[in-house]
Amino acid sequence: MSLKLTILGCHSATPRVNANPTAQFLEIKNHNFLIDCGEGTQVQLRRFGIKFSKIKHIFISHLHGDHFFGLVGLISTFRLLNRESELHVYGPIGIKEAITLQLKISNSWTQYPLIFHELSSKKSELIFEDSKVEVFTIPLDHRVYTNGFLFKEKVGERKLNMSTIKNVDEIEICDYQNLKNGKDFILNNGNIIKNNELTLEPNTPKSYAFCSDTSYFPPIIDIIKEVNCLYHESTFLKDKESLAYTTKHATASQAASIAKQAKVKQLIIGHYSGRYKNIEDFKTEAQEIFENTYLAETGKVFEIF
Amino acid sequence: MSLKLTILGCHSATPRVNANPTAQFLEIKNHNFLIDCGEGTQVQLRRFGIKFSKIKHIFISHLHGDHFFGLVGLISTFRLLNRESELHVYGPIGIKEAITLQLKISNSWTQYPLIFHELSSKKSELIFEDSKVEVFTIPLDHRVYTNGFLFKEKVGERKLNMSTIKNVDEIEICDYQNLKNGKDFILNNGNIIKNNELTLEPNTPKSYAFCSDTSYFPPIIDIIKEVNCLYHESTFLKDKESLAYTTKHATASQAASIAKQAKVKQLIIGHYSGRYKNIEDFKTEAQEIFENTYLAETGKVFEIF
Repeated sequence: MSLKLTILGCHSATPRVNANPTAQFLEIKNHNFLIDCGEGTQVQLRRFGIKFSKIKHIFISHLHGDHFFGLVGLISTFRLLNRESELHVYGPIGIKEAITLQLKISNSWTQYPLIFHELSSKKSELIFEDSKVEVFTIPLDHRVYTNGFLFKEKVGERKLNMSTIKNVDEIEICDYQNLKNGKDFILNNGNIIKNNELTLEPNTPKSYAFCSDTSYFPPIIDIIKEVNCLYHESTFLKDKESLAYTTKHATASQAASIAKQAKVKQLIIGHYSGRYKNIEDFKTEAQEIFENTYLAETGKVFEIF
Repeated sequence: MSLKLTILGCHSATPRVNANPTAQFLEIKNHNFLIDCGEGTQVQLRRFGIKFSKIKHIFISHLHGDHFFGLVGLISTFRLLNRESELHVYGPIGIKEAITLQLKISNSWTQYPLIFHELSSKKSELIFEDSKVEVFTIPLDHRVYTNGFLFKEKVGERKLNMSTIKNVDEIEICDYQNLKNGKDFILNNGNIIKNNELTLEPNTPKSYAFCSDTSYFPPIIDIIKEVNCLYHESTFLKDKESLAYTTKHATASQAASIAKQAKVKQLIIGHYSGRYKNIEDFKTEAQEIFENTYLAETGKVFEIF
């Protein structure tokens, strides 16, 4: 199965009609991750038919409003919908106090377990792991403490090679899981068939890196090396490179340069400043450096194979 | 000039596409007041072409999310737009801490004066006054501390009666303001012309009462007596009267009953629960008790003469 990324919002802070702030919904293995949660994200989830109950983990990059002002509303709505399952929120230190204070004054504490994982390290760290997926932080360079997130599938099971298995009568369906796990097969006569004769290499694990907001920051290159897909903010075009520098944002060229240096397979850019009328200009600029660039657009779905 | 009320959102808490939570924009005399500020209000202001810089006073009824989760975003946007003028926020005690904490952690304190007027009284009180307008709280009965707001024009200047003034040669344009202020006119020969011979009664001051969220709460009747227009929440129809009672909301019938007892001239109902598919049912139910009832709908403008 591929990774599936739905763009719920991809514009920078100033509010406009039909220009939602940052939020993304990532489906990877059996997980459904929400990444950032600008104001109005819960309505965007509704608009694109995403079931609220699917979301068990929310990752917040930083505490600027256009990346987290929608979080408290979503948490409150989960309460109204009688959610029972745990919700895990990963974000910068301070996020817990900001959210819980609002729940307290509105006298609407959640009836479901709301678990905050507050981040403060300036080094990349593993913040989520199960048998299939790992999530690492990507320390970024912005005006406040900010992390991107690297979502990585783990190496999966080996795949059954039915064209060889069918020739071995002694192999039964109940043996399949051992084969997928890499075990050799021992025949009744004691002979051994090596696992790699009966199985194929597992699917190559896929990976997605989310990097927003950030200045042009080469230290991330090692962390995101060769990911299948990189989302990198590009608030400005290169005509505003000095403004990008002072506000700690990136230009389309800079995002493309990071993608090229990290040898990623695909780049998505977004977080466009409202000053630009035609977002196609971002793509044009980025593609001069990194050809396989796509524009984030609200509602767009990227399937990452 | 009439009062002008624009409905920016009029639905209850559960988010849906095209069902914005409570926010209203009131134009009265030379003032532009924002009343409540649910999530997404700033985009609604944009949608209906309301200039952000017009808003100098925001009134928040209570600290449930569907009435104030959009406030911090709007305050932040004012900052991005380089606002310089004062912004006054009137709302329940606790609102200042909730907003300022979020501004602090996002390292984005406003460069304009942001002044909170925290409310805690359970009695109606005057919270804003200038030469033309007064605003009073209307203590309501809800699950958390809640106030409605009564917006009242003051009695204006007397109107010049040009049909009599034109017969008095000695009256010049520079005398008009004194006449408007109610002064008699003294002729050169010492004779006095009574003011009421030269002027007409001023326009009757208009008034608007906003009451949401609240249970059926008769103590408000004295405060809102004979207002030109009453907005009263009606979350439910009478089939859910017991649910209205336990959640401290009102039914359409109860809203209409309050309107009738208070002898208001016009009733607007809103804050509809998402469980009802056809909001016309609210109007039908209310009109059985109070004929002059209108439905709040997003984007609808009420001119109150």
